[in-house]
Order: sequence, then C-alpha cells, then structure tokens
Amino acid sequence: MITHISPLGSMDLLSQLEVDMLKRTASSDLYQLFRNCSLAVLNSGSQTDSSHELLSRFESFDINVLRRERGVKLELINPPEEAFVDGRIIRSLQANLFAVLRDILFVNGQITHAERFQHLNQEDSIHITNMVFSILRNARALHIGEEPNMVVCWGGHSINATEYQYCRSVGSQLGLRELNICTGCGPGVMEAPMKGAAVGHAQQRYKDGRFIGLTEPSIIAAEPPNPLVNELIIMPDIEKRLEAFVRIAHGIIIFPGGVGTAEELLYLLGILMNPQNHDQVLPLILTGPKESADYFRVLDQFIVNTVGEQARRHYTIIIDDAAEVARQMKKAMPQVKENRRETGDAYSFNWSIRIAPDLQVPFMPTHENMANLNLYPNQPPEKLAAALRRAFSGIVAGNVKEMGIREIKEKGPYKLHGDAQMMHHMDDLLQGFVAQHRMKLPGTAYIPCYEIIK
Amino acid sequence: MITHISPLGSMDLLSQLEVDMLKRTASSDLYQLFRNCSLAVLNSGSQTDSSHELLSRFESFDINVLRRERGVKLELINPPEEAFVDGRIIRSLQANLFAVLRDILFVNGQITHAERFQHLNQEDSIHITNMVFSILRNARALHIGEEPNMVVCWGGHSINATEYQYCRSVGSQLGLRELNICTGCGPGVMEAPMKGAAVGHAQQRYKDGRFIGLTEPSIIAAEPPNPLVNELIIMPDIEKRLEAFVRIAHGIIIFPGGVGTAEELLYLLGILMNPQNHDQVLPLILTGPKESADYFRVLDQFIVNTVGEQARRHYTIIIDDAAEVARQMKKAMPQVKENRRETGDAYSFNWSIRIAPDLQVPFMPTHENMANLNLYPNQPPEKLAAALRRAFSGIVAGNVKEMGIREIKEKGPYKLHGDAQMMHHMDDLLQGFVAQHRMKLPGTAYIPCYEIIK
Amino acid sequence: MITHISPLGSMDLLSQLEVDMLKRTASSDLYQLFRNCSLAVLNSGSQTDSSHELLSRFESFDINVLRRERGVKLELINPPEEAFVDGRIIRSLQANLFAVLRDILFVNGQITHAERFQHLNQEDSIHITNMVFSILRNARALHIGEEPNMVVCWGGHSINATEYQYCRSVGSQLGLRELNICTGCGPGVMEAPMKGAAVGHAQQRYKDGRFIGLTEPSIIAAEPPNPLVNELIIMPDIEKRLEAFVRIAHGIIIFPGGVGTAEELLYLLGILMNPQNHDQVLPLILTGPKESADYFRVLDQFIVNTVGEQARRHYTIIIDDAAEVARQMKKAMPQVKENRRETGDAYSFNWSIRIAPDLQVPFMPTHENMANLNLYPNQPPEKLAAALRRAFSGIVAGNVKEMGIREIKEKGPYKLHGDAQMMHHMDDLLQGFVAQHRMKLPGTAYIPCYEIIK
Amino acid sequence: MITHISPLGSMDLLSQLEVDMLKRTASSDLYQLFRNCSLAVLNSGSQTDSSHELLSRFESFDINVLRRERGVKLELINPPEEAFVDGRIIRSLQANLFAVLRDILFVNGQITHAERFQHLNQEDSIHITNMVFSILRNARALHIGEEPNMVVCWGGHSINATEYQYCRSVGSQLGLRELNICTGCGPGVMEAPMKGAAVGHAQQRYKDGRFIGLTEPSIIAAEPPNPLVNELIIMPDIEKRLEAFVRIAHGIIIFPGGVGTAEELLYLLGILMNPQNHDQVLPLILTGPKESADYFRVLDQFIVNTVGEQARRHYTIIIDDAAEVARQMKKAMPQVKENRRETGDAYSFNWSIRIAPDLQVPFMPTHENMANLNLYPNQPPEKLAAALRRAFSGIVAGNVKEMGIREIKEKGPYKLHGDAQMMHHMDDLLQGFVAQHRMKLPGTAYIPCYEIIK
Repeated sequence: MITHISPLGSMDLLSQLEVDMLKRTASSDLYQLFRNCSLAVLNSGSQTDSSHELLSRFESFDINVLRRERGVKLELINPPEEAFVDGRIIRSLQANLFAVLRDILFVNGQITHAERFQHLNQEDSIHITNMVFSILRNARALHIGEEPNMVVCWGGHSINATEYQYCRSVGSQLGLRELNICTGCGPGVMEAPMKGAAVGHAQQRYKDGRFIGLTEPSIIAAEPPNPLVNELIIMPDIEKRLEAFVRIAHGIIIFPGGVGTAEELLYLLGILMNPQNHDQVLPLILTGPKESADYFRVLDQFIVNTVGEQARRHYTIIIDDAAEVARQMKKAMPQVKENRRETGDAYSFNWSIRIAPDLQVPFMPTHENMANLNLYPNQPPEKLAAALRRAFSGIVAGNVKEMGIREIKEKGPYKLHGDAQMMHHMDDLLQGFVAQHRMKLPGTAYIPCYEIIK
Repeated sequence: MITHISPLGSMDLLSQLEVDMLKRTASSDLYQLFRNCSLAVLNSGSQTDSSHELLSRFESFDINVLRRERGVKLELINPPEEAFVDGRIIRSLQANLFAVLRDILFVNGQITHAERFQHLNQEDSIHITNMVFSILRNARALHIGEEPNMVVCWGGHSINATEYQYCRSVGSQLGLRELNICTGCGPGVMEAPMKGAAVGHAQQRYKDGRFIGLTEPSIIAAEPPNPLVNELIIMPDIEKRLEAFVRIAHGIIIFPGGVGTAEELLYLLGILMNPQNHDQVLPLILTGPKESADYFRVLDQFIVNTVGEQARRHYTIIIDDAAEVARQMKKAMPQVKENRRETGDAYSFNWSIRIAPDLQVPFMPTHENMANLNLYPNQPPEKLAAALRRAFSGIVAGNVKEMGIREIKEKGPYKLHGDAQMMHHMDDLLQGFVAQHRMKLPGTAYIPCYEIIK
Repeated sequence: MITHISPLGSMDLLSQLEVDMLKRTASSDLYQLFRNCSLAVLNSGSQTDSSHELLSRFESFDINVLRRERGVKLELINPPEEAFVDGRIIRSLQANLFAVLRDILFVNGQITHAERFQHLNQEDSIHITNMVFSILRNARALHIGEEPNMVVCWGGHSINATEYQYCRSVGSQLGLRELNICTGCGPGVMEAPMKGAAVGHAQQRYKDGRFIGLTEPSIIAAEPPNPLVNELIIMPDIEKRLEAFVRIAHGIIIFPGGVGTAEELLYLLGILMNPQNHDQVLPLILTGPKESADYFRVLDQFIVNTVGEQARRHYTIIIDDAAEVARQMKKAMPQVKENRRETGDAYSFNWSIRIAPDLQVPFMPTHENMANLNLYPNQPPEKLAAALRRAFSGIVAGNVKEMGIREIKEKGPYKLHGDAQMMHHMDDLLQGFVAQHRMKLPGTAYIPCYEIIK
Repeated sequence: MITHISPLGSMDLLSQLEVDMLKRTASSDLYQLFRNCSLAVLNSGSQTDSSHELLSRFESFDINVLRRERGVKLELINPPEEAFVDGRIIRSLQANLFAVLRDILFVNGQITHAERFQHLNQEDSIHITNMVFSILRNARALHIGEEPNMVVCWGGHSINATEYQYCRSVGSQLGLRELNICTGCGPGVMEAPMKGAAVGHAQQRYKDGRFIGLTEPSIIAAEPPNPLVNELIIMPDIEKRLEAFVRIAHGIIIFPGGVGTAEELLYLLGILMNPQNHDQVLPLILTGPKESADYFRVLDQFIVNTVGEQARRHYTIIIDDAAEVARQMKKAMPQVKENRRETGDAYSFNWSIRIAPDLQVPFMPTHENMANLNLYPNQPPEKLAAALRRAFSGIVAGNVKEMGIREIKEKGPYKLHGDAQMMHHMDDLLQGFVAQHRMKLPGTAYIPCYEIIK
C-alpha cells in the first residue's frame, strides 16, 4: 500500500538541494533516522517500550520525499493501518511526520554547518545552547508574544492506574488555569497531564492549548508520541533534550517514576544549586497521589542524605492535592515573568540559566566511566548532584537503552564506587524502586545492571 | 459573595428596554425562570436528577442584570463555588450563563410578540416551526457555509460504566471523522460522545468542534449542561426541543436509555413513517455495547409488534462496533447534502421534514389524557407511533417531572387502555426497563406510575 | 441578463415567513423600496445627484429573493454592468445588497411589530431611540469590545478639488491614528476621508478599518454608497439617521458644505446646548483648507449672532491643518471613554445623550410649517438652534428633495418670518452659499426656494 | 532623540550569536549596510533619486540591536521625524525595519556559510538559485497554499502624471481581479499599481492583498519603499533581485520607463528566448496610456531590428486599456497553474525556468567590460539579448549608480562597439529616451555617459 501525504503544520517549502539530501542518502544513516522516526510517529498510541519490537514489526515500511507543485509530499509504503481513518491519515500524525522531516533536515544542516567551522567546538557550551535555541526556533516553538505559561512535566512512562488518574487530574487543574504542557511525548506521565489539560482548556474555551512533545531519535520508537502532542520536536540527543526542557520551562512538575525520574531531579539540582543560578526563578514541584507519598519521602531523604539539606530550597513536595499544585504553578508565573523582564531575558527561552558543561556534554555509560564517577561528599553540591545524575543515567541505559544493554551483556553489571554511607543510601533507593516495580514495565523480573561497591 | 460577570459568546448589547424587562420582572415568572436556569448552568457537572434538590441547596443564590459601558454584566450573589477557579468563573459556564440570558429574553420577546398578533395561532404548525428556527438562528446555531456534519445523540442520562465507555468510543470515532455532536446537554449519553469526539477532533486538529446542548427550562436543573457543551440553547418546551433536534440533525444515534429513549424512538417513527416524509434522508442508528444487545432486541421487537415490520426501514441496529457506526454516519452525509440541495432546503435547518401537529403540540399527562390515548392497531402507523410516544411521555413525567409526580400522588397511577396484545407487549417492555434499572437513578426502588388495563 | 447572488456579510438565514414577506409584497411599497435601494447600491460610484435620473435609466431592472440550501439568494434582472468584473459581482456591492435586504426586512418587522402595540407611540422618544439601537445592533454595527474610535464626518457631497484633497488628507491623518470613519456614504466629503483613512490604515497595518455608511431610502439613490463603505446601514428616515450618527459617534468633524452642513451644525448645537447634555464629551471640529476659511468664518459668525457666543464652547474651528484635526480627535478618545465609563454608558452607543423630541420628530417642510417656525431670540438657545435647523432643512428639501421641489412648484418659495436682525444674518449666510456655488451641483443656476420676510 | 522599536512581522527571536554579530561589527561593512538600509526604510515616501543626498541629510542617525525579554528591539537615534505619528513609529515602517534586519542577517549567514564550503562555487548556477529561494523562504514570501496570482510590475520610478494615473488604473483592475503586486518597491511605477490594487482589493473585500517590494542595498536609499509595500525583501544584488522577480512572478507587466526598462525587457527576452524555456508559461504585457504609445512602438521596433521578429512571440503590447491588461493576466493564471502542475513545479517559486549564467552573474560596468560586449548579430538571439541587456545595464550604472558615475568621471564615457546597423538602432533608441526626459529625474540636463562607435 502506497499513500502520498501533504504537509501540515510549520513545514515550509523545501529547496531542491534539501530534497536531494534526503534522497541521495537513501541508504545512509540520515535516511534511516528519518525512516525510523517517521515509523514511530505513525505508531503513536501503541504501547511498547521496545523500539526493537516496533521496528521489526514494520520491516516493509518505507518513506520517500517527493517534490510537488504545492511543496513537498511524503510517500508512505506499507504504513501502519492505525494511522488512518477511512483511508485518510489522522491529521496530528500528518503534522508530526512533517515535524520529523523538519527537525532532521534542520539539525543535519546545522551540524554540517558547524563541522565546517574549524574554530567552532561542537562541545562548546555557547554553541550547544545556540543549537538548542535554533532547533526550537526553527520548529516555531518560541512564541514571541506569549506570557510565561509552559509547565514541563516529568515522570515515568510506566505508571499505575492511580498515578495515571492523579497526573490527569493535575493536568486538568493546570488546564483550567490556562497553562500549557511540555513532556517527553510518550505514554504514562507524558500523556496523562495533556489529557487532563485538554479538558481544562475546553472548559475555559482556551483554543491555543500547546502540548509540546520533546523527544530524541534514540527514544522516539520506544515512546511514540501520544495522540495529544500538537507540537512534536526532535532534539538530537538526551543532553540537548534536557537542556531544551529546562530553557523552555516556566515551571517543572516531577511525577512518580523510576531511576529516570531520579536522574531528572538530580540534573535539575545540578543546575539550580549552581551559585550562578542563585537568582533564577524556576518553580519545581514533586507530586503524586497519596499512594505515592512513600516514593517521594524516600527520594527526598536520599537527596538530603547525599546532596544536603539545602537542596530542599529548590523543590516543594505536594502529596495528593492536584488543585494546589496547579495553584502554586499559576501563582509563580508572574514571578517568572518579572524575573525574565528584570534580567532582560526572553520569556520563551531562558538564556540566562547556567548549565555547566558536565551537564551538557553527553555521558557515555561505559564500565570505565561508571567506575570513575566521583561519588564522594567532598565537593560542591551541584558537582555531586551532577555525578549522581550520571550514575543514574548509566543505570537507565543499562536497563533500557540499546548501548547500555549491550555493554552489560558483554562485561557484566556496572561497578559503582563511592563514599560508603552514600552508597548505602543509593542502594536503599534503588532497592526500593525494584520493590515498587519502577525499574521496568510490569510483568518482567528485574535483573540489576549495577553493583554497588561499598 | 457577590461577583460580576462579563458577557462571552454570542451575546449582543442589550437595549435599555430589554434590561428593564428582566429587572422589572424580578419577582415574576420570567425572572424566576432566568434565575433557575442560571443556577443550573453554574452547577454544570454536578450529578443529581432532582432539580428540586439543586434549587433548595442554593436558596440564597441570586442574579441581576446590570447595564455597563461594555454591554451588560451579570451580578451573581452566592453562586456555587465549583463554578470558579481561583476566584474566576470558568469560561464555558460564563458563556452558558449568557446563552441562558439570550434565549430567555428572545423567547419571551417572540412569545409576547406572537400573543399580540390576534390572527396568529400559537399552535399553528408553521409558526411553531418558525419559532424553533428563530431561536436557533438567534443563538447563531445555524451556520450558513457548513456541510452536513451534525449528529444528534440520544439516550439515557443514567447509564452504566460499560455503556458510558461505549458511547465515548462512538464519540471518538465520530470525532476522528470530523462530525459534530448535539445532545440533550446533561450527563451520561449526553456527555460521553462529546468527550470522545473532543479527543477525536484534537487528533484531527479540528478546531471548530461543535458540541451543542439543547435543553429546556423544566429539565436543565435536573440535567445541568456537561462541561463540554460549547453551544447551549434553551428551547421553551419539550416539543420544540424535539423539533429542534430533528431539524438540526444530519443524522441521529440512539444509545441505550429507558422509557425516555423509547419515547424518542417513537417520536422519530411518528415522523419518518409519515408518507409526506417519504423522500427524507435522515440516517438513524441504534447502538450499544454487546452487553446492551438485549435492550435493543426487546425494543426492536416491541416496535415490530406494535407499529409493524415496515418501521425497520427507518433504523439500523449496530451492536458493539463504534467504528462502523461512525463510518455509516460519515458515509450518509453526502447523501443528506445531495437531498437538501435537490429540494432546495437549507443544510443547517431541515425545513422540509413534516412534523404533524400531534407531535408538535404539548401533551399534558393528566389522568384523563392518558386514559384517552388511542392505543389500538386500526390506524396509520405514524399515528399509532405518535400515540405510543405520548404514553411513554406520560410515564416519564410520572417518573421524574414535577407536574407528573404531583398528579400521581393525588390520583394514583395512570391507567392505560388499549388493544390487549399491544398492552401485553408494552407491559413486557416496561417490566424489562424496571428489571434493568432503567427507570430511575440506581439506588432507589422503582414504584410504577402507571397501570396497564389489558 | 439574469444573475444569482449569494449572501456576503452579516446576513443570516431567512425564515420562510421572511422570504414570503418580500415575495408577497412584490407589487407593494416594501418591494419597491427594496428594489430601488438595491439599484442604488449597484450604482455605487456613479455620480449624479438625481435619484430620478438613476431610476429611469434602469427601468428594466428587477430583483427577487430566492430561498436556497445555503441560505437566501438574490436574483438580479438587468443589473448595471459596472457592478460586475468579468461577469462576477464586485464583493463590496454584494455585501451592500444584502445589507439593504437585512435592514429593510428588519425595519419593516420592527415597525409592523410596533404598530401592533397599541400602547406604543411611534413618536415616543424612548422607542425611537430603541429602534435606532435595534437597527444598528441587528446590522452588527455595535462592537462590544471596541475602544472609542469612530469619527463621524459631515459635509457636502458636492465639493471642489481642493476641498476633496483636504478631506482626504484629514482622512489619512485619522487613519494613521487608527480611527474609523462614518459618513453619509455618498461621494464628496462622504468619500474623501474614507479614501485617505484606507491608506493610513494600510500604513499602520490596521486590518479592521471600519467605513460605515449611514444612509436612508430617500437619499440612497441620489448619493449611492462610495466603493469604500464596508458597512452599509439604511435608517428609515433622516431623523433616525441623524440620531444614529450622534449616538454612534465618538467625535464629529464638519467639512465645508452648503445649507445641509449648516443644518447639521444647528442640529448638533440643538443637542449639545441642551443643559441635560452638560456633561457629555463629544469633540466637534469644523475644518477645511485655507481656501474655505471664509466659509467657516461666516458660519461661525452666523452662529454667534443667532444662537449666541456660548455656542462656541461646543466646537473648534481648525483651518488647513489636517494633522492637528486628527491629533485633537485622537487625544479626545480617552476622555470619551472615561466619560462613558463614569456614566456606565456603552462605548459603542451613546444612550445617555439627550435628543429632544423636536429634533427626533420628522419635520414636514410644508409652506405652513415653514411659515410657523419660531425664529425669534426670546427662547433657550437649544430651542432656537432646533428651529433654525428646521428652516435650513426646509431649504434643503426645496432645493433637492422630491417633496420640497413639488411644494415650491405649486405654491412658490417658502416664506420665513423672524426677528429682523436674525433674518438679516440668515439672508447673508444663504447669499454667501449661493455665491460660493454651494446650493447645487456646479453648472446649474440657482433659483432660491425661499423668501425671507424681514 | 532615542526610540526603542519592537518587532513586527515575520521576525523571530534572535539568538545571542546573531545579536552579537551585528554588535561586534558596529564599525564594519555589515553594520553600515544595516544602518543605511534602515535609514532608507525610515524615509519611505520621500522623493529623491540620490541616495547620497538621503544619507548625508541624516548623518547623526544611528541604530542598535538590543536583546529583550520579548525578543529583540531596535534602538533608533535621531531617526527621521516623518516615520512617526504622535511619537509612535508607523507600523509598516516598523515591519520593514525588521525585514531589513531579517534579510541582512540571513544573507550574511548564508554567504558566510557558503564561503566556508570549499567545493561550493558562489557563482554556481544551482547555488545562486538556491540562495534566491532561501532568502524568499526565510522572508515567508513563498506561500504554500496559494494559487498563482502574483503580477510583477516593472517600469521607471520617474514617470509623468498621465503615466502614473494609468499605472494606478491598471493596478485597480488587477486588484478587482484579486491579483497581487510585486515591484521594485520605490515610487512611480513601483507605487502606482499598488495604490490602485489596494482600492480594488478593498472593493472585493480581499483582505490578504500582498504588495511585495523587492529591493537591494545599493538601490534602497535612492528608491525607498513606498508606503503600500507590506512585504519588503532585500536581495543581495541586482542579479539575484532580477532572478527573484522572475521566479516569483506568475505574470509580468512592463510600464513605460527609461533605459532601465529596456534592460529589464532584454533580460526577460534573454530568458524567454532560451530554447530550454520553450514550454514555460509566463505572460508578459507591455502597456501604457495612449500618450506612451510611441515609447513602446520604438522599443518594439528596436527589439525586432536587433533580436529579431520571433521575440514578439513572448510579449503583447496593449495601449490604453487597463481592464484588458488585467483581464489577460487573470485569464493566464489557470494556464500558469496547469503548467506548474504538469511539470511538478512549485506554484510559489518557478524552479524550472532556466536562467543562463550570463544573466545570473553580476556584470561589472568597467570601461573594459563595456568595450568588450559582443553586440553583433551572428549569435543566438538569447545571447544577443543578454549582451544588449549588459550594455543598457552599464548605461544605467553610468547614469545613477555610484560606481558607474565614478568610472565615468575618471575615464570619460563608455565606448560601445558593435554591428553598425545595430549601433544605429541603439543610438536612435537612446536619443529618444533623452528627448522624452527618461534618462534622469526632470529638471536636470542629461549628459550621456556612453559613446556609440559605429
């Protein structure tokens, strides 16, 4: 089956050179990336955390870019049936397909460009931030006239029904206050707040609700965009994706999750505890239903035990009070605005928040790198937070990412060294996650990918 | 607590005379009507089928119309708290409040007008239809450029979770096909398809979804508008409301319900079996989850046994296939359009469908009227359908409407006479509804308000 | 040649009764009115001040209202060719045709309605104002959210090139300040400010420029709407038209004209000098190019000599400074807004300004009425202004209106009595107008239709 | 006087790097270019053909780019007063200022980019076309959904009143047919059709009228954008500007002008007579009032005498019939659309028309280059047309461009060699232009900058 799809959304005409780029490279990495991300988009709504499974189910799927009088068209060969209603593609998928095309072409163009600038160091902090900005701007995600209203929601993609309902209820309360939602774009916590907010927006007759899904090529197939995402943006890697979250956020909510959620909190603490960010205003709320109170109690205790009591200055924990979460977020927005105005910073992109290179530069979870992490207390708290973030990041990779799984298979579990007491706390935390089935999708037994050397 | 509310939606400026009309009548029926409907709107989403309960819970509630520089304002005294978010009224409620004001003023103006025309008979068929049209036009519900796409959904406001889920799923499939929804605006079947369609519309990036709620003053408090209704219209009585449904519909779906649903189906058959409507195109689908198959089997059998086999020509029963329901509706739309074009009829208002006076004129469920119904087979099927519809209408009144309940209290159950076999079928049907808990909200025992004299 | 025209603009669906009303009356006055106004609209842009000429040129023109699936259609038989471009009607004419239909139907409905209310006196001040309001509201000319910005421009439809250029230049300066224009909708002063403002709006990227043309059936053929009018409204008679101007205006500019302009100024003074309007804020500027300085000097002197020095409090004369005129108007807008807000009056319709019955009730320029005018100083200035306004009104009628011309033909010139000195001033003023060719279109000699009895 | 100006129009947020680029280079060429173009924009509407004069009048003018919370701001120091109304900048100027910023930054980015690609030859035909495309796309001038409707109008910026009136009248007829206008953005022929079309659009209630002004840094000061231009685009040089005209056009009208107009016609013939463009559909009409009939008769004769009779196949001359010009243009649009569809080319950008390198590569009018032009008949007509175009281009430069004037001052008039008869025709043509005062603005005597060596 072959279908032709016209552009929808923020897709401009393509030049001949751009079309050729994707054609010429049909056998190349760029083309494969484009094909796989497109396939993931067409599977929006399907539930799996294995990108391998998804890709192998649609081996005969293919995609081509065609140039046409009214712009470009996409030719789909053997696409998943669920993407169509009575033979016509669902329009949000259509728009997301072109978002994939847009971002892949743009990022590739930028990188090619950058590589040719000898004096430019790709890992240079300013240029990383500039690239994050350029990708978001090219996706028209930075709206000039808009007041602060973007709430980033983090948390697991695999949560139970009670947690799902709670996340939805928080979303509904955010929506009633005309706040927008940005998540990692997959199912679970990435979907529930959007679903709630959509109803809240409808009740307020708020027509311009934004549901931004920020994803990356290595994760999009495992967490295909949920159907409510109306702005899909594909960042080139996890570090730029995290940076995009932080710079686009006017507030952040962390829902229950697993190690990934702990990683995210530590990433944020690595930023917020940096003395250079002393004057930043970025409300951060940890919240869940009363059934999840323990999760946050344990996490909070771990933070205090490792990074220290002063970390608490940067977050608030609210248990089982969706309206209160939304109320606090809404109340913080004028302060965020005031702060941006005072520092002359953009409302839609937080240029001034400092993200240290150790948080920007990709961390490769090799056994060596994991073993070398400095997990000792004698360092500034933001440094320690960054090191702990890397440890958790490695564990996430060992659990679900292709590269990590391969490493573990070959060389056995990662070995983590550190201060005895700290290692003790860490072990407790991780055991707790295992006990609460937060390490993997339910139904599979968890075999730890790490070993703590106390 | 006193709040002032500005207009939202299709509310024009009011003249001094209009404002005075509502003021002067503060102690009058018109004002009471306005106050009670407004209170019902402010209770959107609350669950009760007793308008009495609602009204008595908010005895201190009051409302005033004030004239202001930017038009009119409403002053609310002691309104329900749930209508507000952080002290600001929810915008859909705000719009619906002004819809109430608009319709009550307009209908009152029209009626006053009509009463003064000596040569006009209020029960004259043409003028009833004209009034239905004028109310809808004044509410800006008749869109000139729009292709046929309005699906009227009927069924009970008290349905079980499985049925609710199924209705929602049908709504989602309708929404994916960019069809709009019109219901009686309360909870249950009146809400579920809208909820589904809202997500379907979002997936299709369809921004102009219409969720019309058609209600009437005597029912609005018992079935307050659900939060998704974005066009609320208040018709003066049940007959004009039913006529509005039929003339605005491009297709009708009947979900499971109780006696009210049977009444609605008989009302439709009274119209569709009229030989003057031979060429009308109005798709009518009866549908429910597989658990409700019995309900429709019994109802269908009752229809065949009473009105006759040929009634089946006018409806299709689809069990447990939401996509198929939506597919058939969508496929019928071009035929509806063609039919309207051929007869030169408006797309947005079906002028040409014939509604006989016995379906237009209000039926008063007195014991005398009920006893006098002609429930015998020797009459044209559309006549019989109309008579049966009145019988069921009386039973609904006896169950839930103030006037009916009072009658029953005073004089005991209604007595229905008719052909023995027909009465037998009727008894079976009603017993079935009792057994399935479809006569009242769950949790209350049902005491029949009728007696069948076989 | 027969063409069918679809609706454009604020035209709703018509009910069957409404269509029938225009059909049934095909041989009636209402139909003739509708036909003639429609013909005038189709002649927009043509230059003549004789409606007789226009109507006789298109005797074979005819128009019918047809009901169609997408609403109503107009059937035009032998319409003027200039209304079409390559066989398609020019869209502003299309919209104006439907404005004619809308207003004629509405006014007729209202009047019929009113006639049936025995207790309603058509000349009752409140009900006249209410009708003016209702017509404007029905034409959707009263925008709720809009800040004060409507400048009414008055002056002759027959002006010289220098004056035309100046009016245009004032229009351009008003447009640059995002003010809108309302005029009598014909050529000359009724067109020039709109032309200028259109360019000013374009330079400001102001997309919602409103160019309201307020006309009446007896004048529309002689002064067909100029091509820039984008909201055409037909008031039933000159008094309601003048009232509409005053109540819709946030400021008024009077450009050079003839007797009609003097009539307009006296009408305004009759209102503004009324003690009940003491607190009204309504900026009134008289302006023209330096070549017209004399015109205003003489007019101003006449006012001072008759109505008295205190009249000057209500107007400002600005000669040859287009930017200053616009600047003063713009500066007054916040005061107008503040005044409306303080008195709780609508921004879009000045309810509170008092217009005395002698200014609202039509003045019939019979010889008797003219002879009976009280043109003596011993009365309140607003009364005297109103009387003088009637005198000028009669002279305008004698000059150009059918009824007046007929009267003069039969009974000779009007005879005006009054205070000797006042009559002397009046004679001077009128002689000046004759000398300046302001009594008629150039090229025709003027024979006075009045005689002043000193 | 210092003012801060916020963005308007298609201006995105700027990155820190971009702002720095303009800051760092404050003393550089890029900054000077930006300043001078901005100054030209602020002088829109002023009449001069000397950019030198303009720049020297505002020596104290300065401009800075500031980064602010809602995006970038421009700081203007001592800007021309005429750009402001009551202290606020006119919005079309505001938008055009940011168009300057947008294009200068983008072009600079692209060129920098291109320079770094060693394998890219800036003069490579594909890359020139790609750059033209990229600049137009970045300016959002290529609308995807739009049917062919863009008429490019060429002709002199210095024309007499009769010609101006005629151009305006053609514009009005184009506007009534809902065609858009693209010109060189200055006064005269570049303004008149826009003025006419604006009224035509208003009469058709056509809200999305596009008035594109395509200019270049070296000419913008001499021909500042007229007030109606609502999309200003600055191409880097005359060749890319001409290419942009041709690729964006769906039809071209040439009005009377001088040597520049002859140059433009020859440029078009150099393209249209190219056998590779045999199947192109690009309507080309030469038109003027009857007073200009001679101009076109002489030009047509010159073309036939030099390039040959077959050139006439590519253009139509219409004298004094504005409606006919517009009618032919409108009638050609479906053919243009069909042709684009058949070849799969974009509606908004003509990729497939072939522009030979000798028309793309900048021609430097040095004495040597001028002397070396091959002005002999023994070559393909499109080659000869291209050579003649260069000759005229040199003369235009010698007349009005800085570089040309300097050359002439130093080395005396250009010497043109060629076929005797051809040189004779050329001399006649140019003498005619001198006689008709088409070589310079009126009021200055013309001293020829060339010498024809027969």
